[in-house]
Amino acid sequence: MTARRWAILLEYDGAGFVGWQTQAAGLAIQTIVENAVSRLAGGPVACVTAGRTDAGVHALGQVVHFDLEREIEPAKLVQALNFHTKPHRVVALRAVVVPDDWSARFSATGRAYRYVILNRRARPGLEAGRVWHLPQALDAAAMAAAARHLLGRHDFTSFRAAACQAKSPMRTLDRLDVTRHGDVIEIVAEARSFLHHQVRNMVGTLKFIGEGRWAPDVTAEILAAADRSRAGPTAPPEGLFLTAVRYAPTVFD
Amino acid sequence: MTARRWAILLEYDGAGFVGWQTQAAGLAIQTIVENAVSRLAGGPVACVTAGRTDAGVHALGQVVHFDLEREIEPAKLVQALNFHTKPHRVVALRAVVVPDDWSARFSATGRAYRYVILNRRARPGLEAGRVWHLPQALDAAAMAAAARHLLGRHDFTSFRAAACQAKSPMRTLDRLDVTRHGDVIEIVAEARSFLHHQVRNMVGTLKFIGEGRWAPDVTAEILAAADRSRAGPTAPPEGLFLTAVRYAPTVFD
Repeated sequence: MTARRWAILLEYDGAGFVGWQTQAAGLAIQTIVENAVSRLAGGPVACVTAGRTDAGVHALGQVVHFDLEREIEPAKLVQALNFHTKPHRVVALRAVVVPDDWSARFSATGRAYRYVILNRRARPGLEAGRVWHLPQALDAAAMAAAARHLLGRHDFTSFRAAACQAKSPMRTLDRLDVTRHGDVIEIVAEARSFLHHQVRNMVGTLKFIGEGRWAPDVTAEILAAADRSRAGPTAPPEGLFLTAVRYAPTVFD
Repeated sequence: MTARRWAILLEYDGAGFVGWQTQAAGLAIQTIVENAVSRLAGGPVACVTAGRTDAGVHALGQVVHFDLEREIEPAKLVQALNFHTKPHRVVALRAVVVPDDWSARFSATGRAYRYVILNRRARPGLEAGRVWHLPQALDAAAMAAAARHLLGRHDFTSFRAAACQAKSPMRTLDRLDVTRHGDVIEIVAEARSFLHHQVRNMVGTLKFIGEGRWAPDVTAEILAAADRSRAGPTAPPEGLFLTAVRYAPTVFD
């Protein structure tokens, strides 16, 4: 029989992992997922992901695909994957058969991230490991104003990690909202795709603006400079969540 | 100089603790807080809490009081407490001087709890330890209908732990809302005070109704029976959060 291609919706807690991608040392989410699929397949199976999240980054809606020869019902596949990923905080939420030429990575039409800042004096109690704790009062309105300069199609070299493997630094940022809810500042970023560390580098820059160290307009100058050294530092990974990957047509209703 | 009475707003992750109250074995939140205050005071100080949360129960807005002779600014007291509670996930959020006869426990005019059920097949990834995972689909509307029978002043013997030390089983339940948000069912309970395990026993009963095992009207019969064996089991502690304690006048704006 021929193999079928499966798309899987995944949730994970990034704490304690070296990130999505399998590394020489440390436990990767890819390793856990591929081991689980390989147990089902009875042989090695490779997974392709929509986004290779960094060490410590969480996912509520990561998507991967792989090919499986074995016939299985979607619900049974989810159940079997979740059996084999135990006891790790990596779980499959949905499984859908997709066309043979569909790719979790290349078919994606959008990625959505959320970054959470806990802006209060006291360190996090319940949310430790899921927020960037910034004790100094931040001006969220100034951060929101600064974020608006980054919207649209630009050369994002200033917000790109040195290790970034993308061919072009051009990206179209569709959304970068900054909103305060009490002690929490939430930043939502959406684009077709992002450069390596782009979201965390934008957040690190917005932090400088929130502190009043830089004026909101400076983000336009930083973009124009196309120079990583002009932007702020990389925000830590633990505040970042990959919330959704979008496809057209939709895969997970 | 005379001692001043302080009210402290606390947040904690209940995982790994034996609960609020100091026990012969295991680490209690009370021990961590009293040790921190005692370090500041230079001698033993006892804390009184608004609610002695069970092992595993979390708090976003617990309140305690204690008396301290030492003069200190509120912000410095919060900072010092948070230094001494490290590395535990127990943090002070606010400190306010209150009258000498004020009690975190006896001056409280209301307690609010949230209980979170994750109602999906897949086990929790990110929310492990902060939800009750129930894989079978629950009818939240039936649970909400059942909850309404419990509102008002009643003898809550059917929902009271055998170990409960309250003199009377009469309590007035002001709020018991059940709402579904996607895979999450949230139950919000408010009353002047609750019996031991009352919220968890109500949630365990609502679970039976959500499963269709019992009709929503059965909660009225269970109340009238005044018999613990008639209600459902005690829901696990990890889904429960003490969200707020109310005082009149308000202590923490």
